[in-house]
Amino acid sequence: MVTTAISEAPPLDVERWFNTDMPLTLEVLRGKVVVVHAFQMLCPGCVAHAIPQAKRLHEIARRRDDLVVLGLHCVFEHHAAMTPIALEAFLHEYRVAFPVAVDRPSAEGPIPRTMAAYGLQGTPSTIVIDRAGLIVRHSFGAEDDLVLGLVVGSLLNDGPAGGPQ
Amino acid sequence: MVTTAISEAPPLDVERWFNTDMPLTLEVLRGKVVVVHAFQMLCPGCVAHAIPQAKRLHEIARRRDDLVVLGLHCVFEHHAAMTPIALEAFLHEYRVAFPVAVDRPSAEGPIPRTMAAYGLQGTPSTIVIDRAGLIVRHSFGAEDDLVLGLVVGSLLNDGPAGGPQ
Amino acid sequence: MVTTAISEAPPLDVERWFNTDMPLTLEVLRGKVVVVHAFQMLCPGCVAHAIPQAKRLHEIARRRDDLVVLGLHCVFEHHAAMTPIALEAFLHEYRVAFPVAVDRPSAEGPIPRTMAAYGLQGTPSTIVIDRAGLIVRHSFGAEDDLVLGLVVGSLLNDGPAGGPQ
Amino acid sequence: MVTTAISEAPPLDVERWFNTDMPLTLEVLRGKVVVVHAFQMLCPGCVAHAIPQAKRLHEIARRRDDLVVLGLHCVFEHHAAMTPIALEAFLHEYRVAFPVAVDRPSAEGPIPRTMAAYGLQGTPSTIVIDRAGLIVRHSFGAEDDLVLGLVVGSLLNDGPAGGPQ
Repeated sequence: MVTTAISEAPPLDVERWFNTDMPLTLEVLRGKVVVVHAFQMLCPGCVAHAIPQAKRLHEIARRRDDLVVLGLHCVFEHHAAMTPIALEAFLHEYRVAFPVAVDRPSAEGPIPRTMAAYGLQGTPSTIVIDRAGLIVRHSFGAEDDLVLGLVVGSLLNDGPAGGPQ
Repeated sequence: MVTTAISEAPPLDVERWFNTDMPLTLEVLRGKVVVVHAFQMLCPGCVAHAIPQAKRLHEIARRRDDLVVLGLHCVFEHHAAMTPIALEAFLHEYRVAFPVAVDRPSAEGPIPRTMAAYGLQGTPSTIVIDRAGLIVRHSFGAEDDLVLGLVVGSLLNDGPAGGPQ
Repeated sequence: MVTTAISEAPPLDVERWFNTDMPLTLEVLRGKVVVVHAFQMLCPGCVAHAIPQAKRLHEIARRRDDLVVLGLHCVFEHHAAMTPIALEAFLHEYRVAFPVAVDRPSAEGPIPRTMAAYGLQGTPSTIVIDRAGLIVRHSFGAEDDLVLGLVVGSLLNDGPAGGPQ
Repeated sequence: MVTTAISEAPPLDVERWFNTDMPLTLEVLRGKVVVVHAFQMLCPGCVAHAIPQAKRLHEIARRRDDLVVLGLHCVFEHHAAMTPIALEAFLHEYRVAFPVAVDRPSAEGPIPRTMAAYGLQGTPSTIVIDRAGLIVRHSFGAEDDLVLGLVVGSLLNDGPAGGPQ
């Protein structure tokens, strides 16, 4: 499932962060292209495909100043298993170095708050946000590397810091 | 690392079982070839290679009466993350259908009891036990499918229920 | 090896074409982004990685009018084995649907003419040409999907037919 | 498709051999387990799966004296492309070190002689022959490593040179 209707990216409602010294907001990242990888640590498709993809994209992003990769741990099932302490061990074992936000649990049900605000259907989901803070692409399931690269690449050349890699 | 010095398989010291109605013992399984896959749910090499291999071997084993595949969850690190409740979610999400034993924690240190008794170096480890209860092969790290198949196949033809598949 | 020094793409010197009704030239394709996959049919890295990548990129390209994928069969070894008739069977068996040019053999040595004009080091090589006919990137060896996608994406948003996919 | 009806292996009718100093026959190999990988050099399933599997099995076989891996190049289509000279380049590029027989073409049609004698349905096909020269298993299509290992392993323990690896 791919949505390309453009809309403003809601703020990230985050319980805590890993791999960053200070909490991040989309507002602070305005002007950069942001790719958010929504995952659960016990989701097989995330572990086999989406997290390795996010790690590779992060390796590219850390060499430029106009692209940011964020993880979003949005637990909507097995809440007792996928706690922040379990996530911390997971990030260590899988060598995940990009910033990861823990989506804030909701009092009303199993779906955490950011997941609800973005209308995510499950994990893995990939959200591409442009320099202006608009959601340009939102996909559920395994995202092809070439397709993701094309979408992100087209946004990188769009702004003041653009130009081919 | 591969050990092929033949020795008697120590008993499994188990805190609890998943995917079996009653606790299993090697004694009860005497007469069958038993392949024990020792893993941790947050071990990347286990998730990417050893557990899928064990699942495929289990699919073969469930069609015959002389071969058994067992999982052994031997947690020696990140104990707070890899609890039995987390393991239960993991087994569900990864569709692991073979019996899985939770290695009994030790009061003396991080290494659980069966892991210590077998002298396992880490996870994944694969232990092949013959019909007489002897350890025929013990390997640490990713085990090649062809090599494992050859070892197990040579044991299956060894006893009263033998013969080519 | 990656070269990013920008220079004008030399013309393709072609003995014959497959998968196109009429011969193609870079001049005719001016205004589009062109990705040239240089390969040999008996090159393992081409068969395992580069040709599948080119096929996936071609699937994307055929749904838009600003991107073209071309194959270039540049035989510089085993000339007696990799004849056009053998290539034709190869393209059929591997379901290659994008246009493939047979690089024109040289009278002076084993390196065919287009390969020499582009200074290719071997196969697989990937050449990305922008809408103006300039070589933006030239890489030898397996090219990462994400990296290729980013480079091509940044060029697609550059011209009159641009915009996110 | 898997056939397990046991029958005597017909002789190999061979035009020429690669990777062996002298022609081989099944008769000479009697007493060993023989695995014959029937392939075509332009068959994608052979290149992606069956030949790498045969190479790995050959690496195991060369360390023991009771197991032999043979390739059988049985060209039944694209005869002009898959000549012995093209095969020679292929074997070099793909680092195939096990002996490969070129199946003898037939005057009566496109199917070569050994392929016809064995009733192969296509490529890749895998034929497992026991120490007595009987076909124990004959499969068409990608053969699972574990399954092949189990079948071969059960035969290795069967004879005078048996015993676990």
